[in-house]
Amino acid sequence: MSWQGLIAHFGDRMDIAKTVPPVTLHEGNTPLIPAPRLAQAIAPGCELYLKYEGLNPTGSFKDRGMTAAITQAVAEGAQAVICASTGNTSASAAAYAARAGLRCVVLIPDGKIALGKLAATIAYGAEVVAIDGSFDDGLRMVREIAERTPISLVNSVNPARLQGQKTAAWEVTEQLAGTPDWLCLPVGNAGNISAYWMGFKEQGHKPPRLLGAQAAGSAPIVNGARVDKPETLATAIRIGNPARWQQAVDALQESCGHILAVTDEEIFDAYRLVAKTEGVFCEPSSAAGLAGLRKAVAAGEVNPEGKRIVSVLTGHGLKDPDSAVREAAVPTRIPADLDALMRVMNV
Amino acid sequence: MSWQGLIAHFGDRMDIAKTVPPVTLHEGNTPLIPAPRLAQAIAPGCELYLKYEGLNPTGSFKDRGMTAAITQAVAEGAQAVICASTGNTSASAAAYAARAGLRCVVLIPDGKIALGKLAATIAYGAEVVAIDGSFDDGLRMVREIAERTPISLVNSVNPARLQGQKTAAWEVTEQLAGTPDWLCLPVGNAGNISAYWMGFKEQGHKPPRLLGAQAAGSAPIVNGARVDKPETLATAIRIGNPARWQQAVDALQESCGHILAVTDEEIFDAYRLVAKTEGVFCEPSSAAGLAGLRKAVAAGEVNPEGKRIVSVLTGHGLKDPDSAVREAAVPTRIPADLDALMRVMNV
Repeated sequence: MSWQGLIAHFGDRMDIAKTVPPVTLHEGNTPLIPAPRLAQAIAPGCELYLKYEGLNPTGSFKDRGMTAAITQAVAEGAQAVICASTGNTSASAAAYAARAGLRCVVLIPDGKIALGKLAATIAYGAEVVAIDGSFDDGLRMVREIAERTPISLVNSVNPARLQGQKTAAWEVTEQLAGTPDWLCLPVGNAGNISAYWMGFKEQGHKPPRLLGAQAAGSAPIVNGARVDKPETLATAIRIGNPARWQQAVDALQESCGHILAVTDEEIFDAYRLVAKTEGVFCEPSSAAGLAGLRKAVAAGEVNPEGKRIVSVLTGHGLKDPDSAVREAAVPTRIPADLDALMRVMNV
Repeated sequence: MSWQGLIAHFGDRMDIAKTVPPVTLHEGNTPLIPAPRLAQAIAPGCELYLKYEGLNPTGSFKDRGMTAAITQAVAEGAQAVICASTGNTSASAAAYAARAGLRCVVLIPDGKIALGKLAATIAYGAEVVAIDGSFDDGLRMVREIAERTPISLVNSVNPARLQGQKTAAWEVTEQLAGTPDWLCLPVGNAGNISAYWMGFKEQGHKPPRLLGAQAAGSAPIVNGARVDKPETLATAIRIGNPARWQQAVDALQESCGHILAVTDEEIFDAYRLVAKTEGVFCEPSSAAGLAGLRKAVAAGEVNPEGKRIVSVLTGHGLKDPDSAVREAAVPTRIPADLDALMRVMNV
């Protein structure tokens, strides 16, 4: 039987309603790609793997939680769903709501969204409302409307979301035939690190140590203090007051893990490096985990020698065309002439 | 054993060199997604499935051919690869070349390329050269340079490309546990339709009938005449003189198939519809297969009743942010206030 999505494969271990057929786009089952040349560059001596979550249907790991949250919403009789989102969540909510035939409303903090993410959300038929306020304002508003009306909230405060997201830990374990020594990932709202930890703990094997990375301009957990005006070009982790803050701190502690801040420059260096050395294109925030690994290895906080290390690439590079284009050099222009081509190629 | 890419899974039936480890990004194994609501809208009475090739590593079906072509190039000792491309081929060539540590040069027809595609190609580290000429000029130049130097040509005239691409037919057959009655797909350079037909014939089951769709402004096979200035917003199939023209004609005839032209308006209608009804976002040219199915059903050329029909979505919607943004309405703007939200939502 071919892959039919997360709930078909892992549903018996997910605490969600089983009374309706899963709402699925066959999410999950994403590749775990060996990255030997990148390992040599940033963490010599380890076996490094990339969990390429950008190959989920809407291009990010959010689809794992969304298949669970939308299935739950359908089981509860919801006719509409709502979320506040800086981008990846909105595209995922819109796609799964479309799949289920539900109305979807997305609140976006005004002007703070990557172009390609918004376009996809609209393509999936969601109603997009820009508010004159921050992500935190948006989250407050959608929480309130979900309390007063039969509209289902699908932000990561929805517990079904983590039930879906934790399956990534099980996939990593199946793919490696064991758990890694370290799992590296970006930390924004902290739902993903919490979900991985839940997944690793539930399966009973020795769990990995967690290495979380926050953007330096948006590092509330690292600094131990809320950030009122978070700033980073890694928009998917630009969150100053994470919803799963305490769960992330617990996960880091229980796993003997580590969390650190990486600058935008370090994030973009890693973003470029993984594409050029391994042929894997991720969105900038996804590269924070690799930037964190590189920094932790350089500082002696992680010893890579002989270790198996997995870095989670949360979204596809195509999710953020603005960043990609900003990085891109203008192509060389030549006449349609073979000599000109051989000259410019130096052959 | 988890999925390790096309060559690991199908390599014994692929006519390529086996002397080096496969150059792979774990391409293939893409979802076959049932589309019942879309079926009701465009081909009532059939079981419709979407082969979502946009979930390959670089976001299009080109990765199937590229894992084969780059592996072959490495086996032959090439140090560099080259191609002419309107977009998807270049991103794929760049990614697999990066993976293999090869130099990659991409020729693009000046000004005729979707923004997101070029950005990804540059991110993967390819050298991009814009020529003052057409796609056909570019193809002529790369053929010549590949003859004169030890640089490997990875355009679809490279036979390894079809060896990789034909595997999609085998996946469809595995996923359906049988072959469909019809397979619909866009036709540009005609490599993909030729490869599917090769795959279906080689496996020995009863093959499907093929339904090809070309853009009306770029329909040389439908018209039986080369198009000197092909025009369509579906840039991935804007090709006036297909490399695999005769093979496509043979495949259509042998399969008792049909090829037709669809207007850009029909293509974009299908592009919007599949996202809004099924939550699947593809690039515009990918929707040509669905637009063709809809038109053929309306004209009585395809009877959908009781049939199993697969439509191939060749690339992800995120591949063409320009089209997505052109389609997108500007979000409604409101103050960060619950009453304003409830008013705009009409709840």
